[in-house]
Amino acid sequence: MTRKYGIADTTFSRVDMGSLVYKVIRSEDSEADIVRYTVPGIKDLPVAAKRLIDEGCDGVITLGWVGKTMLDKYSYLATSIGLIMVQILTSKHVIDVTVHEDEADDEEKLKEIAIDRATKHAKNLVKLVKEGKNALTKYAGKGLRQGYSNAGEID
Amino acid sequence: MTRKYGIADTTFSRVDMGSLVYKVIRSEDSEADIVRYTVPGIKDLPVAAKRLIDEGCDGVITLGWVGKTMLDKYSYLATSIGLIMVQILTSKHVIDVTVHEDEADDEEKLKEIAIDRATKHAKNLVKLVKEGKNALTKYAGKGLRQGYSNAGEID
Amino acid sequence: MTRKYGIADTTFSRVDMGSLVYKVIRSEDSEADIVRYTVPGIKDLPVAAKRLIDEGCDGVITLGWVGKTMLDKYSYLATSIGLIMVQILTSKHVIDVTVHEDEADDEEKLKEIAIDRATKHAKNLVKLVKEGKNALTKYAGKGLRQGYSNAGEID
Amino acid sequence: MTRKYGIADTTFSRVDMGSLVYKVIRSEDSEADIVRYTVPGIKDLPVAAKRLIDEGCDGVITLGWVGKTMLDKYSYLATSIGLIMVQILTSKHVIDVTVHEDEADDEEKLKEIAIDRATKHAKNLVKLVKEGKNALTKYAGKGLRQGYSNAGEID
Amino acid sequence: MTRKYGIADTTFSRVDMGSLVYKVIRSEDSEADIVRYTVPGIKDLPVAAKRLIDEGCDGVITLGWVGKTMLDKYSYLATSIGLIMVQILTSKHVIDVTVHEDEADDEEKLKEIAIDRATKHAKNLVKLVKEGKNALTKYAGKGLRQGYSNAGEID
Repeated sequence: MTRKYGIADTTFSRVDMGSLVYKVIRSEDSEADIVRYTVPGIKDLPVAAKRLIDEGCDGVITLGWVGKTMLDKYSYLATSIGLIMVQILTSKHVIDVTVHEDEADDEEKLKEIAIDRATKHAKNLVKLVKEGKNALTKYAGKGLRQGYSNAGEID
Repeated sequence: MTRKYGIADTTFSRVDMGSLVYKVIRSEDSEADIVRYTVPGIKDLPVAAKRLIDEGCDGVITLGWVGKTMLDKYSYLATSIGLIMVQILTSKHVIDVTVHEDEADDEEKLKEIAIDRATKHAKNLVKLVKEGKNALTKYAGKGLRQGYSNAGEID
Repeated sequence: MTRKYGIADTTFSRVDMGSLVYKVIRSEDSEADIVRYTVPGIKDLPVAAKRLIDEGCDGVITLGWVGKTMLDKYSYLATSIGLIMVQILTSKHVIDVTVHEDEADDEEKLKEIAIDRATKHAKNLVKLVKEGKNALTKYAGKGLRQGYSNAGEID
Repeated sequence: MTRKYGIADTTFSRVDMGSLVYKVIRSEDSEADIVRYTVPGIKDLPVAAKRLIDEGCDGVITLGWVGKTMLDKYSYLATSIGLIMVQILTSKHVIDVTVHEDEADDEEKLKEIAIDRATKHAKNLVKLVKEGKNALTKYAGKGLRQGYSNAGEID
Repeated sequence: MTRKYGIADTTFSRVDMGSLVYKVIRSEDSEADIVRYTVPGIKDLPVAAKRLIDEGCDGVITLGWVGKTMLDKYSYLATSIGLIMVQILTSKHVIDVTVHEDEADDEEKLKEIAIDRATKHAKNLVKLVKEGKNALTKYAGKGLRQGYSNAGEID
């Protein structure tokens, strides 16, 4: 059966991670169905992920962008709880890419973080959907990072 | 079939966003059914949204107003989690407009934020309900803002 | 059919809001059934509300009292999430009256807040249960407050 | 039918509140079944409570002990939300006794708090399970405290 | 019937706790089935635990690693709520091992904490799954710690 991936992104984001992730998934799993769902902001991502799973997606990647204020962080917390609840209720992976505006001082760096994180997590999603629960086991404990260089294993 | 929109607003709010949003939805989708539900405060919005969906709404917009204290922010967090849960359990969009009293120092500015945010999100809701998951895709990553001027795409 | 209201209150509270609310509901809806449920503290209120709804209440009012420490506030947050979940799962209103010990420096003022807030919200509950979703619409955006004087509409 | 009580306690706790609570429940309800469930720490208490209810307990008391750091407090918050969810989903009381290591400077005082709080809440649980929703109503608004002396009613 | 244990670990972690825990479980319960599931980060652990239970695990241990920033701590909070929800919905234990990067200044100490905590909790999981709710009762209130030396019982 054809694998089906969902991409949920936002108009709030300042980088078009959705188009990028589409290409990465296509290149990692050339025959897959890929469906995109664009919503205004991060708090709309959980229902977008839920609806993508409702229409048959085997896994979803969400692409959030979060402002700098405490209220933005509370929205991030509520969204994170929501995305985890979607996964628990459907038993499907929803890989959550979030870029926080205060992760970098200049815009170029922020865009680099977004591209690196979205690319790496798109590959993670494909691995988990295609190969299952041991696809990433050889990297377990290796201190991998998305958006930054890897921290590495201790010792 | 006729589309049906729900509007949930509060008596706590200091701007009548409900009437405004009614007009915006009516002008964006002239034949739609529009139902309004007014509750005391933000913590009553999730059940109002749930009841509007129970009676057949295809999508809901909630119009919250939040005070300045830490306790108000905790109420905002609990409400946000609740609104996301309603969406997850029903697979319907509940677009959440929230105005925080500490977003501006003077009342006039606060009212401008409320009007801009409620108007833009009412249009977002209609787009999502009428045209579905790709209605907003052309704006993905464009840095759109509600209540403020757009941040824009990086680069 | 006779309307049925639930009142959930606590032994932790320093004001007997339950008896007061009973009288207010009785005076606003003279033929209604009114059931009271007393629990130790705020974290017990969600299940009390759930049980009141299980036995047929059309709406519930909870009467919480919260201490001054950060831990008390975390308990308030958990309780708020719980009360919202009860409402989402049952589609019934649970109007939440909470008095925080740090809202006023002297006890007399605190008692005034409790009485005002509980009275106004008891009336809100009866309005919503008796008249439904548009009972409060004429007050939408009017800046109504419970426990304090109204903030009023901007402009 | 014989009443059945559940006691969930932890190996993290520095006071054996479980044995104490067993004796209190036995003395308050001499013919009841009492089942004890010991888990490592507070985050394991919600599932212990759920499993105790699954095997027929009419009510449960959980006996948590929480460290001093911010992370411990986040664990407390997550646990509190979980315990409230168990109650909402089962409509059974789970009375939550929590002792925070920063409630007192010396160990003896901490132990006193634990003993007082656990004893009083064990009695509360028996009252609610045996006599139901009005068992505590005569104490409503009386400012009762567990672990400390009562604050009392205002006026 | 053969007991089945699940291990969920991450590529974010800087110590390979998964392999260690596999050996500990194998040595504590030599005939058991043991299944491992590796995900990118802590927010993916709840669905991994859910999927492990879906395929028949009697209990699961999750092995999380958390960064130093406030956002990492919010992710920890959301994950904790999610792991507790998985347990409530399935009535199965999910023992949560989390190592926070700010628990120690040097990497060697951090690794020691990870090894000690993961080993002790793997033994706790086996005890609970094999022997049930009273397997740990003799240690109730004994102030046991994982990752640190035991605090001990007061008095």
